[in-house]
Order: sequence, then C-alpha cells, then structure tokens
Amino acid sequence: LPVPKVVDHEQRRHAIAEAVWRLAAGSGLEAVSLAEVAAEAGVSKGHVQHYFANRDELLRYAAGRAGERRCARVLGHLPDPLTPLDLLRAALAAFLPTDADSRTDALLENAFLIRAVTDERLAADLLSVHRQTLGALQRLLADAQETGQLRADLDPAVEAPRLLALTTGLATHLLLGHQDTGAALATLDRALDQLRTTTEAPR
Amino acid sequence: LPVPKVVDHEQRRHAIAEAVWRLAAGSGLEAVSLAEVAAEAGVSKGHVQHYFANRDELLRYAAGRAGERRCARVLGHLPDPLTPLDLLRAALAAFLPTDADSRTDALLENAFLIRAVTDERLAADLLSVHRQTLGALQRLLADAQETGQLRADLDPAVEAPRLLALTTGLATHLLLGHQDTGAALATLDRALDQLRTTTEAPR
Repeated sequence: LPVPKVVDHEQRRHAIAEAVWRLAAGSGLEAVSLAEVAAEAGVSKGHVQHYFANRDELLRYAAGRAGERRCARVLGHLPDPLTPLDLLRAALAAFLPTDADSRTDALLENAFLIRAVTDERLAADLLSVHRQTLGALQRLLADAQETGQLRADLDPAVEAPRLLALTTGLATHLLLGHQDTGAALATLDRALDQLRTTTEAPR
Repeated sequence: LPVPKVVDHEQRRHAIAEAVWRLAAGSGLEAVSLAEVAAEAGVSKGHVQHYFANRDELLRYAAGRAGERRCARVLGHLPDPLTPLDLLRAALAAFLPTDADSRTDALLENAFLIRAVTDERLAADLLSVHRQTLGALQRLLADAQETGQLRADLDPAVEAPRLLALTTGLATHLLLGHQDTGAALATLDRALDQLRTTTEAPR
C-alpha cells in the first residue's frame, strides 16, 4: 500500500514565519508583502495564502513564534546549578539583541509595536505576552527572595515592571547602536545587584 | 509699490513635518507616502517635493523637528524655583507618552528606529541626538550632586544611560498600553529617589 504523504503543517507555517523574520530584520515590516514572504521562503504565494488568510494573520503568527523562540533561547543557556536569580537574569538578558537571532527578535518587536497601534487583535496578543512575562519575572523575584538571594523588603510587583522596562530600553539602545552589549549587560547586572541581600560595591 | 510676498520656507517645511507626525501616529510610517503627506498637509505633491528631495529626507526632517518639540515641552513645563533634580525629572518625563503630542513623538521614535536599521544617515542623526541627550542628563546629574540633592558617590556616566534606558522602556510599555501613566511616573520617581542623598521610603 502506498504510504500517505504526511504533511507537517506546523513546520510549513514555521518556515514561512522564518522568512518573515529574515525580511523584517533586514528592512522592517514595511517591506513584508505576501509575495515577498513567499519568494523569501522559496514557495508560491498561493502556498502562503493556504496557511494564512491575510498579511495581518501571518504577522501575528510570526510575532507569536518569535516569543517562543526567545523562551527556548533562555532555557537553552541556563547555568547549572541554577538559582532563581540566575534564571531571572537569563530571562531578562534574552530580551537584549546580542546575536543575530535576538537582534531579529528585537527588530520584530519594534515593528510589531507600531502595528499594534492600529491592530487591536495584535495589541491584545502583545498585552497577553507582556502579562505572562511580568508574571514569570514576579515569580522568579519571589523565589529569589525565598532562597535569600534578594532582599525580603522588595515588592516583586514593583520590581518586575521596572526591570522589564529597563531591559526594553536597553534593547532599543542596543538595536540603534547607542550602547554595546557589554555596557548593556553591566547596566542590567548593576540593577540586579541593587536588589541583592548583600549589597555589592557599585560598578 | 507692491509689497513682495514673504515666504517663510521653514514654516512651510514645518507644516509638512506636522502632517508626517499625524499620519505616523495614526498608522506608523508604513502609511507615509509623499502623496499622502501632501493630502494631509493640504498642499500639492509638487509642493512637498519642492521642499524635500525624497521620502527619506522628509522623514529625517520630521524626526529632527519632533526632537526639538520635545525639548520645547520640557522647557515649557518647568517648576519655579528650579533645582537640577527638577530639570532632570522633567527631561526624562518628557520621553513618556502621556498626552497626544508626546504619544506622537514616541510613535515616531519607534517608527524611526526601524528605518534607522537600513538608513545609515538617519542612524547617524539618531546617535547624535542620543549623545546630546546623554550629555545633558550627565550634566544635570552632576549639577544635582553639586547642590547636594544626589549622592556624591554616583557616577553620572553610569546613571545617565541607565535612567535613559529605563525611560525608553517605560515609553514603549505606555505606548502599548502595558502600563498607565501613573505607574510609569512612579517607577521613574522611584529610580530617582534611590539616587537621592536622603533615601526615602520605598514606594
């Protein structure tokens, strides 16, 4: 009997999202049309349209997969043994454009920010991801307080949005070449040091 | 004798830049073509082309004028009497999208960020503005140390980029509706409080 051809639709959708990332990182989302995405992915425009009803749906999908990729990057670079503070630092550092993949992610994030102003569904997606991120950071801060790494008098609900805002700003400055990776990581480490139980010398 | 018609070219260029701001704030720079800018400004496309050689030149001009507008906003809302710390706070708060004008500026900034990745001249313009901003913040930090408002052991060269990164990130989160104005200003004030000579109770 002939073996039916198994089509991995998720893999095909992902390959199209990767083409969006490459195009968007090169020249922003202004350049991304369905035809260009198809050419970049080496497939027909009809193939892209089979998987995505329109450009907005494609861009939202590409945004979601970029977030998952960042998450995988954090989990792939963890020190061992692992403390809550290590994980907190890794989660924040993953937002910084320090190599090709994370640079693409940061560019995508800025491109999506502008679209979110006029695309309510994308805005809702981004808000949901933001809340998940804040929740994860708050849990890590609380864990690090329990293990005694971070000061007990800190309020994770105050520190989490502050650390995330600092990291978002550092990512923007790195993207624009206004700061280098070493300086950005030093700024992040300094912010974390100030939350530690034992205050270290200012850097 | 007939009075010669005096044409204020800078005023006309500025009116065109204002049209760019309105369009970009509505739907990002993707939507901004010379024809659309002309329609929004209520002039002909030829009029726009008389003042700007191409779209890139127009967008760079609009970016520059937006920076000047922010500066004017800071100077227009200063407390009296004025301390260096007041001025530092006002300069940072001016980056936050808290009303229609500052929201437009923040949207423009993100739109230009993406363009800067592929437009070296725009990138150089933005880097120059960034350095001026950092220099001004460093001077204000040093002034506030001299008046005894801020701790003498702080390094303005370290604190200025950190405060600016925090503010840039807060601006992004405000723009996306991930945070409200009150929370963002409280985060900024908390960061400044930690630099003060007399440490206040954590908020």
